Amino acid sequence: MSMQQSQATGTKPRIVIVGAGFGGLNAARTLSGQPVDVLVLNRNNYHGFWPLLYQVATAGLEPESIAYPVRAILQQYRNVAFQMANVSGIDFDGRRVLTDGEPVPYDFLILAAGSTSNYFGNRELETNTFGMKDIDEAEALRNHVLLCFEQAVREPDPDRRAALMTFVIVGGGPTGVELAGAFSELVRHVLPNDYPMLDLALARVLLVEAGEHILATFPQPLQDKALAKLKQMGVDIRLGTAVEHVDQSEVVFKDGRIVPSCTVVWAAGVKAAELADRLGVTQARAGRIPVAPTLALPGHPEVFIIGDMAYLEGYNGHNAFPMVAQVAIQQGKLASANILAELSGRPQQPFKFFDKGSMATIGRRAAIMDAFGIQLSGFLAWLGWLFIHLIELIGFRNRLIVLMNWMYNYFTYDRGVRLITNHLPPVRPLQVTEAAETDESVSR
Amino acid sequence: MSMQQSQATGTKPRIVIVGAGFGGLNAARTLSGQPVDVLVLNRNNYHGFWPLLYQVATAGLEPESIAYPVRAILQQYRNVAFQMANVSGIDFDGRRVLTDGEPVPYDFLILAAGSTSNYFGNRELETNTFGMKDIDEAEALRNHVLLCFEQAVREPDPDRRAALMTFVIVGGGPTGVELAGAFSELVRHVLPNDYPMLDLALARVLLVEAGEHILATFPQPLQDKALAKLKQMGVDIRLGTAVEHVDQSEVVFKDGRIVPSCTVVWAAGVKAAELADRLGVTQARAGRIPVAPTLALPGHPEVFIIGDMAYLEGYNGHNAFPMVAQVAIQQGKLASANILAELSGRPQQPFKFFDKGSMATIGRRAAIMDAFGIQLSGFLAWLGWLFIHLIELIGFRNRLIVLMNWMYNYFTYDRGVRLITNHLPPVRPLQVTEAAETDESVSR
Repeated sequence: MSMQQSQATGTKPRIVIVGAGFGGLNAARTLSGQPVDVLVLNRNNYHGFWPLLYQVATAGLEPESIAYPVRAILQQYRNVAFQMANVSGIDFDGRRVLTDGEPVPYDFLILAAGSTSNYFGNRELETNTFGMKDIDEAEALRNHVLLCFEQAVREPDPDRRAALMTFVIVGGGPTGVELAGAFSELVRHVLPNDYPMLDLALARVLLVEAGEHILATFPQPLQDKALAKLKQMGVDIRLGTAVEHVDQSEVVFKDGRIVPSCTVVWAAGVKAAELADRLGVTQARAGRIPVAPTLALPGHPEVFIIGDMAYLEGYNGHNAFPMVAQVAIQQGKLASANILAELSGRPQQPFKFFDKGSMATIGRRAAIMDAFGIQLSGFLAWLGWLFIHLIELIGFRNRLIVLMNWMYNYFTYDRGVRLITNHLPPVRPLQVTEAAETDESVSR
Repeated sequence: MSMQQSQATGTKPRIVIVGAGFGGLNAARTLSGQPVDVLVLNRNNYHGFWPLLYQVATAGLEPESIAYPVRAILQQYRNVAFQMANVSGIDFDGRRVLTDGEPVPYDFLILAAGSTSNYFGNRELETNTFGMKDIDEAEALRNHVLLCFEQAVREPDPDRRAALMTFVIVGGGPTGVELAGAFSELVRHVLPNDYPMLDLALARVLLVEAGEHILATFPQPLQDKALAKLKQMGVDIRLGTAVEHVDQSEVVFKDGRIVPSCTVVWAAGVKAAELADRLGVTQARAGRIPVAPTLALPGHPEVFIIGDMAYLEGYNGHNAFPMVAQVAIQQGKLASANILAELSGRPQQPFKFFDKGSMATIGRRAAIMDAFGIQLSGFLAWLGWLFIHLIELIGFRNRLIVLMNWMYNYFTYDRGVRLITNHLPPVRPLQVTEAAETDESVSR
């Protein structure tokens, strides 16, 4: 077919992958060593291992230990290049990716830009709650929580002091549950030594869920075990409770109840990355883009959409495949395989999900796991969780540092990373103007 | 004497220490277990181990590994408390420390707020160069340098590309030399693998010094060895060269020469922390405050000033004691000992400096060391540097993580921390307004 004549390079077909998350990286890996030129674009220069993000937010891990430079990952693939770029849109007709720099031409395109927090159009929620979608957000949350305690020490008013020590987590999915457990441990085990002058019995962790269940995607017995464990850890769980209003000092629920709190974390919904809204194509629930079973964008056989951005039914019957890493990984591999199939005239394959199960950790020696029909909870599930997350981390150095931090945190009941950083303004934007004329001594 | 009757607490004398650097922490330690109440104030909630800051700026160490929570350090001292606070001035007559919160009364005061970059009143330098005085600045520099390379990949113009890959370090003291060496290794060993498409021969590291010598406080033979090593590592050294003008794309020297560069690091001078300017007392060179040999502020026997903030002559004859960690540590101990002497009616002692020598690292297996009349350079000095810095780091976890990073960096020629973080705005300021009325369910 004509696509084998690359318009982008004139030689080998050029495949551009937008996003270096689980989906994008697996797509790139599948294309390595094949007769194609691959370019990965990502807005950060690192791949973030988001399953451990909640530990960054709760001072258990340094941000650097769950992130790995994309270039370091891709170095080994000689036909795969990388550029750090913000993608602002796609020119489907011109087959170009629009960025904050030069447009990037492609022959095939894989869109794997992931997801972002879903505030359902509520600007107040977006402004007044903390997100948990990337390293900067997790570090901002860590800084804020520690600052709240420092402020509480100096706050004479007991009501305001209580508000500074009340943490509301909205959303009872895995992220919300893991955060609530980790906050509870921070407040009960770590901070009492730091703040002997504070009455930490006033410190409260609330987990708020609009539905009637936490961890709704897990089997009921595991939900019950997680619920009991969280309650035992002192987490105040509010089921069937939706948020009406949040400001810097309180949260108001739809039933009129008010909880004074300076920290509300939004873990109640995700939607496709904003890029999905800019494509001018049909969108399904949560802004996701319906794709063919081959993951191709209808009407654009040269464009594939994978992971959190893609909407495809067929999970447990007619449900949409969930926005989780396993789906993104497997779709990344399939999209690349289908491009290679297309290039060599073989038929493309439809997406088939191999469900490896799911797990969530709650606290020390407590996790739940649901895999291959086996339901596990407690110490064994926790060990399994540790092991799987450690081996899935990219990079020897990161594995070692995470393992060391875990051992340190476990045996000392301490969290070494409880630092308030980031007082400075963000990175200065680069403004490269015309280079000045150079003198003899430097224009070598 | 009347000071033993504390005006601050009515019971034990209250000693307030401003600053949790080397000086402040050693002052606090000396007072632990004594019949006094101690309060340490610091603008950050952590103690930073600044001798390793240049490794944070060059992606060798994560910021969290060279910082340690002040509360974790002080937990073991039962009569020592901590508050995170910005100190804005001292009310000497009322014996109160003025902060961004409530004023803090004291019976004795130890000022140990350290130093800041000295731009000699030049706002342009302050705006357009990178400082190297705290973790946020070092991380900002790391982010910027890595961003320059990402930008260079996408920059079609070769002159601008060269400017993006040119790093100018102003100041030939230990900080400047260590940074220049580390930048050279980053550019020559680490980044070529990341950027095979860039001609890294265009990348340049300049070390600029207004005087005729680098490392002017070291003996001449060690200066020569350091100079030769830096040259061998490809560092372009400009002695007798002062900076006239810096903007986002070039630096102009006083002799008219121009070097296009997007990154100028200012390591050419330090002065006493800004607090010194707000005390309304006499200041000496670099804003430091002249103190009596006992370290007391003349006219204020209840106030002691130590470390970088204090000006005291007597180093190698009539010089001022330098702004280095050893002086601050020993002065912190003496100030506290003199307060205890005063309280128990014993005579105060004058400051006597025990010079343990000095050292600087240049690169892999290269350092210089001048201690107890022995001058050492090369591999042995480097091993000594590693060992001493590792044992002086506070905290078992930090030591382990730094050691692991060093071994990793050494054997792999890699730097694991080359991440561009901090795209977000800084920490949201806390605005705790009146807590709202709470409903029954939450006002327990």
